[in-house]
Amino acid sequence: MTLAVRYTSARTLDTAPAAPSSPGPGEVELAPAYVGICGTDLHIFHGDMDARVQAPAVLGHEMSGRVVRVGPGVEGWQPGDAVTVMPLRWDDTCPACRAGHQHICQHLDFIGIDSPGAMQQRWTVPASTLIRLPASLPLDRAALVEPTAVAVHDVGRAEVAEDEKVVVVGGGPVGILIALVARAAGADVRVVEPSAHRRLLAEELGLTAWNPADDDVPELVRRWTGDAGADVAFEVSGAAAGVDTAVDVLGVRGRLCLVAIHPRPREVNLHRFFWRELTLVGARLYDHGDFERAVALVADGTIPAERLISKVVALTQAPAAFEALEGGGDVMKILVDCTDDAQGAAV
Amino acid sequence: MTLAVRYTSARTLDTAPAAPSSPGPGEVELAPAYVGICGTDLHIFHGDMDARVQAPAVLGHEMSGRVVRVGPGVEGWQPGDAVTVMPLRWDDTCPACRAGHQHICQHLDFIGIDSPGAMQQRWTVPASTLIRLPASLPLDRAALVEPTAVAVHDVGRAEVAEDEKVVVVGGGPVGILIALVARAAGADVRVVEPSAHRRLLAEELGLTAWNPADDDVPELVRRWTGDAGADVAFEVSGAAAGVDTAVDVLGVRGRLCLVAIHPRPREVNLHRFFWRELTLVGARLYDHGDFERAVALVADGTIPAERLISKVVALTQAPAAFEALEGGGDVMKILVDCTDDAQGAAV
Repeated sequence: MTLAVRYTSARTLDTAPAAPSSPGPGEVELAPAYVGICGTDLHIFHGDMDARVQAPAVLGHEMSGRVVRVGPGVEGWQPGDAVTVMPLRWDDTCPACRAGHQHICQHLDFIGIDSPGAMQQRWTVPASTLIRLPASLPLDRAALVEPTAVAVHDVGRAEVAEDEKVVVVGGGPVGILIALVARAAGADVRVVEPSAHRRLLAEELGLTAWNPADDDVPELVRRWTGDAGADVAFEVSGAAAGVDTAVDVLGVRGRLCLVAIHPRPREVNLHRFFWRELTLVGARLYDHGDFERAVALVADGTIPAERLISKVVALTQAPAAFEALEGGGDVMKILVDCTDDAQGAAV
Repeated sequence: MTLAVRYTSARTLDTAPAAPSSPGPGEVELAPAYVGICGTDLHIFHGDMDARVQAPAVLGHEMSGRVVRVGPGVEGWQPGDAVTVMPLRWDDTCPACRAGHQHICQHLDFIGIDSPGAMQQRWTVPASTLIRLPASLPLDRAALVEPTAVAVHDVGRAEVAEDEKVVVVGGGPVGILIALVARAAGADVRVVEPSAHRRLLAEELGLTAWNPADDDVPELVRRWTGDAGADVAFEVSGAAAGVDTAVDVLGVRGRLCLVAIHPRPREVNLHRFFWRELTLVGARLYDHGDFERAVALVADGTIPAERLISKVVALTQAPAAFEALEGGGDVMKILVDCTDDAQGAAV
């Protein structure tokens, strides 16, 4: 038997034995090594996604691990290969897929939300979801590839170009990763983040961070840009005030990339969109190319993944880690170590 | 002496004698022939723009006319030349101008709002604002060139392509012009408009029009597009419900072109922007190329301008026409005939 972390009901996780199933045709059985806890996992934990998530549900979609067994017909993968997973299954027939946008398939199966995720010691997924990791890349860092792919996708959707001035509103893990990817694209970046802990980490990574509680961010942007305004803003905060800030800092023809999930409609200053001919562009998930690029950025150290990992906990400690994260606190990314099982399940 | 229509205070226009000034260096004196009454003129009339408009103010920026005199240094223009005017003056030094977006200059002088407009019998403007009209184009139709240039700009901002499915929310003059320009670009177009009179006119022009009060527009769009959603929506209504409709009809990676002015923030379903990777693009005014294209579309009959002109009134009747328009009514475009002066001023 192996262990799995399961969401059972609002604010309740358990760890329970799971019986691994043999990989079917086209499937691969993995041994997850590290699994990051994502904001979406916390939303599920809060019970906010009960309409979508079928409990008991194994969470987790930011992972690294190794191939254990391959199912019939799977080629190119061997036991022991280091991999991450692009956790998407699409139907290939809906209008979105036919238009080439499989990652926003109208019937998307997001593995780890709509079907069982990685926070367990054995995980069977379609071989088509595997992304190869370089042997030199430590698996803990590799767990940051998935959120880095999000950032690569977002920076691509915003078409960030060299020497552009970019404001990232929200300095959590995805915001910091966007800032780092945009900087790697040659942009000059500012991060807006209320948490002193997160601002300090951003500064340690060489980014300039502003506190929206103390700083007049639009005025700082005007001074920084010679009254022109920023070229690009990323809204990663999920807050109403974050939307306002992202709109207010943009210059003529500026692009606002909407990354955060806003479950409820937000008041938006549409007049400014008209007046300055702004663009708002929604960005969701990633495609295979984004993942390949993310692997390269984590592997070559452009993304200093080890700096973003606040803590690594054992699988059996995952429920406690969710509770701690819910209370906020000074953390960036927490990883669950699926190989470090206090109860001694073999990996 | 010549006559001018002047805004003096909220809901008050008069006609008053004006002393024409000689055109200065680089300027041209025009005899306006026809001047369209625009929604912006009505906003001024309502008193909504008193913070910006200095009364007494001569209104009007949708015009056709002829050159009367040219000032020192003006080349290429002769008395009698038929012209329209692109009513913009920019500073050429602000960040918007330096980036090549003069039409959204941060210190734009919109002639007819920020400085005296065309609703008078003599009008002096910079020669740089003149757009030549073909001799064969009747001047009443030519007064539709300016709003057609708006539509050309909007369709360009939305990057409407052949065979795309386009929904225009709001079937007033600009909405109908956008629908016609989009159709000329090869798009399949639907117009959403509550006024029966305006829907009838749209249908007479070969467009399909839906009534948002009776029709479930998003459902009609799903059926029309095989569940894919529209490629492009134009929000031209200025209403909160119009924004919702424009968002709700779009398919994956759909583009919403924001044309209408929304003075107050609006609630926007940002989740759908994220979920479907939608784009919102603001569109304001036009550039010289848009005007040239608009002249061609009006001159070759692609825009059947004569069908959009509901009524032509004499200059002295302009105040009454504003009052009638304020009451709503079954009209599209009303032109003021500056040459037909009941008081007999020479033109």
